[in-house]
Amino acid sequence: MSEGEIKKVKLEEERKPLVDLADFEFEKILNSSAELKSIFVLLQHKGNKEKAILIANKLPFDEVKCSEWLGSSQMKEITTNDIYGNYYSLMDQKFNDNKCMLIYPCTGKHIAKYSAQARHLIEETIKDYQEITLPYLGKSSNSIVWIQNCLDGKSEADRVIYDDKDPMNGFMLMMDCKWDGKDMTSMYCQVIIRQAGIKSLRDLNGGNLGMLKTIKSKVVEVMDKKYGIKKDEVIMYFHYQPSYYHLHVHVTHVNYTAPGNNIFSVLLNDVISNIELMSDYYQKATLTFIGKELDGLYIAYKEAGKA
Amino acid sequence: MSEGEIKKVKLEEERKPLVDLADFEFEKILNSSAELKSIFVLLQHKGNKEKAILIANKLPFDEVKCSEWLGSSQMKEITTNDIYGNYYSLMDQKFNDNKCMLIYPCTGKHIAKYSAQARHLIEETIKDYQEITLPYLGKSSNSIVWIQNCLDGKSEADRVIYDDKDPMNGFMLMMDCKWDGKDMTSMYCQVIIRQAGIKSLRDLNGGNLGMLKTIKSKVVEVMDKKYGIKKDEVIMYFHYQPSYYHLHVHVTHVNYTAPGNNIFSVLLNDVISNIELMSDYYQKATLTFIGKELDGLYIAYKEAGKA
Repeated sequence: MSEGEIKKVKLEEERKPLVDLADFEFEKILNSSAELKSIFVLLQHKGNKEKAILIANKLPFDEVKCSEWLGSSQMKEITTNDIYGNYYSLMDQKFNDNKCMLIYPCTGKHIAKYSAQARHLIEETIKDYQEITLPYLGKSSNSIVWIQNCLDGKSEADRVIYDDKDPMNGFMLMMDCKWDGKDMTSMYCQVIIRQAGIKSLRDLNGGNLGMLKTIKSKVVEVMDKKYGIKKDEVIMYFHYQPSYYHLHVHVTHVNYTAPGNNIFSVLLNDVISNIELMSDYYQKATLTFIGKELDGLYIAYKEAGKA
Repeated sequence: MSEGEIKKVKLEEERKPLVDLADFEFEKILNSSAELKSIFVLLQHKGNKEKAILIANKLPFDEVKCSEWLGSSQMKEITTNDIYGNYYSLMDQKFNDNKCMLIYPCTGKHIAKYSAQARHLIEETIKDYQEITLPYLGKSSNSIVWIQNCLDGKSEADRVIYDDKDPMNGFMLMMDCKWDGKDMTSMYCQVIIRQAGIKSLRDLNGGNLGMLKTIKSKVVEVMDKKYGIKKDEVIMYFHYQPSYYHLHVHVTHVNYTAPGNNIFSVLLNDVISNIELMSDYYQKATLTFIGKELDGLYIAYKEAGKA
């Protein structure tokens, strides 16, 4: 059987419409979030024994039909205290849909991606950066072809909002794939700088202040002109560590909590303030980041006896 | 009618068991979170016209009964692409309970508290701190009696985990009221320092390094000894602006996202690193914070033409 044939058979299987979760057996819960009301479950197909991952999410309360589901709710008291009462409430079945994604068949990589990983705090001194982080980055195949494709206009050109082609201080402002471009309070964009070789915060110093300030003022200007989002509604920040090592800035609406936007992100405002106070701040400061159990960088720190 | 009588009548009303949301009319949605699957709805009692607030939350997926609700789920295809399929899934009615709190009767203060507020980015230079923030703090009645009660052992003594009574560098480590003391991954404590007069980050300098480092090492030690939570699982951070102006440190498990722990929090690690780099860092740096529409400090910045 040729490779083409195998592929064809596989495609046939993949196209088979999935009717019923009863075809699968529950294997284990990979991860769950009580906060976000989501769960990641590993399943096995009863017939061919292939694995599947079900990602289930509760849907938000329907704002449009609010009075309707309120009216259908059965209340059951848990506790009451003065003016505060706690209840279970059961809505009519038509309001109880959830949203799922089923990945089938899935690979080991999918399973690792959706599994809960222990998280560890790592304090990176500049010595650690030079002796552990940098060598790790050198070894890992951190492909940035897709970024070059964006910068060259070969990919995602329809998602570019602003483009300054200056090779030193220029940058591209693009819609992030997570944003639909319509709902302003969930605005999510990214700035990708044009200058090559600036991997992350760690490479920034007084020489980059001009670029950073231009990004700050220009993004604010474009957001107002194009979307009516005001200066004090735009948050710009870096991730440390970033997910790829070509300097980029996350740009979101102040009301939107983007995935990964947490205490370990660093505001562009703070970066500018720090470099103004001390030109080589990021070549001196100890930066704290989260290492994930299965992540190569965390493993490198562990091997160096630093985690 | 005397005040006592009024009070009695009110209590009678409050104790009346609430059976049915049908007694209320939908007025408007005060706020909602699509991310957390919660909604805050203003209601009006059909009889006495008093207001009520309903806070409704979807419950997390039941991990214990996972295979049971999976088995009862009806799937409806939305889209499929290769190995990825998107579906609506409807579970058996017994898995569809939500959890609510009803505040009734509620006051205007409740309504403001649960209403969506526009958020604005404010960049506080040290000049702004001195000319706007400090004078505002002086005027506002920021009572810290409850803190003194804790430090004196008059209140919440059963929630104290560690107490160093040194008047200069001492501090108290307490369980936050949001933590049950049992589930380690949702550990949430607070450090309250004993020294009076340190309002926030802004008052910290080289002279406080000893205290900050003692807090860091001692909390880590206690967390390990008492709860088995390891050094690299403990996050310590400040809020800026804080909710009350007596220096305190939030202490949480790295896997727990506490309310308000976001990009505008500042890691204790970063504070120590910054002061080591520059003793008067916090008397020089520009700090960015979120001003909320109805908050007095935001209003003070607005009146000063800075927001």
